[in-house]
Amino acid sequence: MKDKNAVTLILFSGDLDKMLAGFIIATGAAASGMQVNMFFTFWGLKLLQKVNARTKGLNWMRKMFGFMVKSGPSKRPLSKLNMMGLGATMMRQIMKKSNMPDLKTMINMARQMGVKLTACSTSMGVLGIKKESLIPEVTNVAGVASFLSDANKSSFTLFI
Amino acid sequence: MKDKNAVTLILFSGDLDKMLAGFIIATGAAASGMQVNMFFTFWGLKLLQKVNARTKGLNWMRKMFGFMVKSGPSKRPLSKLNMMGLGATMMRQIMKKSNMPDLKTMINMARQMGVKLTACSTSMGVLGIKKESLIPEVTNVAGVASFLSDANKSSFTLFI
Amino acid sequence: MKDKNAVTLILFSGDLDKMLAGFIIATGAAASGMQVNMFFTFWGLKLLQKVNARTKGLNWMRKMFGFMVKSGPSKRPLSKLNMMGLGATMMRQIMKKSNMPDLKTMINMARQMGVKLTACSTSMGVLGIKKESLIPEVTNVAGVASFLSDANKSSFTLFI
Repeated sequence: MKDKNAVTLILFSGDLDKMLAGFIIATGAAASGMQVNMFFTFWGLKLLQKVNARTKGLNWMRKMFGFMVKSGPSKRPLSKLNMMGLGATMMRQIMKKSNMPDLKTMINMARQMGVKLTACSTSMGVLGIKKESLIPEVTNVAGVASFLSDANKSSFTLFI
Repeated sequence: MKDKNAVTLILFSGDLDKMLAGFIIATGAAASGMQVNMFFTFWGLKLLQKVNARTKGLNWMRKMFGFMVKSGPSKRPLSKLNMMGLGATMMRQIMKKSNMPDLKTMINMARQMGVKLTACSTSMGVLGIKKESLIPEVTNVAGVASFLSDANKSSFTLFI
Repeated sequence: MKDKNAVTLILFSGDLDKMLAGFIIATGAAASGMQVNMFFTFWGLKLLQKVNARTKGLNWMRKMFGFMVKSGPSKRPLSKLNMMGLGATMMRQIMKKSNMPDLKTMINMARQMGVKLTACSTSMGVLGIKKESLIPEVTNVAGVASFLSDANKSSFTLFI
């Protein structure tokens, strides 16, 4: 029945809870032998950005966006009940107690299982994110054509 | 053209408006003869939780999450303009005037049409939701492997 | 490998950033020769509604919803950091500096490339949106059966 042994996930939202859902699906699919493509765009790109990435040379608006949306796996907010970060902190504690890996660990796990992590080049241009400010786990930088090619070869594609 | 006569929906958000969209697609697909799988995870699980479910034995963080996100179909907020519940109440009134069934009725309709309602076991563990606190309409409790199996047999899969 | 040369997108959220993502995928897919179906429902319908559409004959609740969620491409909020419209205005400025087309231009581009823009009839009924208040770029008004038919013929379907 399964004719396309691949999955493509668009990580648009940078929220902790949605990211977790994405990585649980991604690592689960990879563990079952599927090729997994994760395409990080817009707020989702913030996960792949180094903490304290340089903003030199950006205009003030892009700097402000960069300042207001923190980068890195330990700074992701919740999509609901974030309460200035309190909800996200509580969620991290609950995950720890449940022995669930945190986002940083999940990125590593995904890479070790061969999951492709693509940073969206269009969003990088708009938000002023440079290639050198991305974490080394990123496997490639590409645009919508690359996403379409992956999605058309996939059994299913999700916008998360 | 249609080689896979099934649909899989992930209900991640617990919002009234997104839930409605999900159930309209689900019942529409079931009415047209498709097998429909609804997979409730994270905030979406709140729809399948009995109102006044016991929280005994949970630690205070899980209790607090349970307290802040109300369970049951009549307590779903709107994804926008919720305004402490006022927006959601207005939406329910508008639905009533439009002779649209409410969420509780839609759950029943879906079940009678053979829609499969799965509660995500991983989210249940993290949020401390016990099997006995789920409404009887839930058809099974399962994890990501079960979701992947359904999605791979589906014509399309949506993350809602 | 690609057996279904079509894409279906459900535009549920009316947010600027999600709309942009949707139109970038839509125009990219159309440019690569795929048939693209965009199905606008709920908050997403606001993009297709004329600015200053008449609300005569609507009850006060629908009028209030119409008042609080502005219509038209230049009034879309951001899904995050909207800050009463300031975030959305900044995003529009950043897009302009990046030479990215605005939403209004993208709607025109999509139409010229043959993208089908469908307004959801069920949502129109619930929200009290009349056919004559839709912009002329809308290609048809239809319900869930039409969406299912498109999705079942598509290589992938996204809920945005």
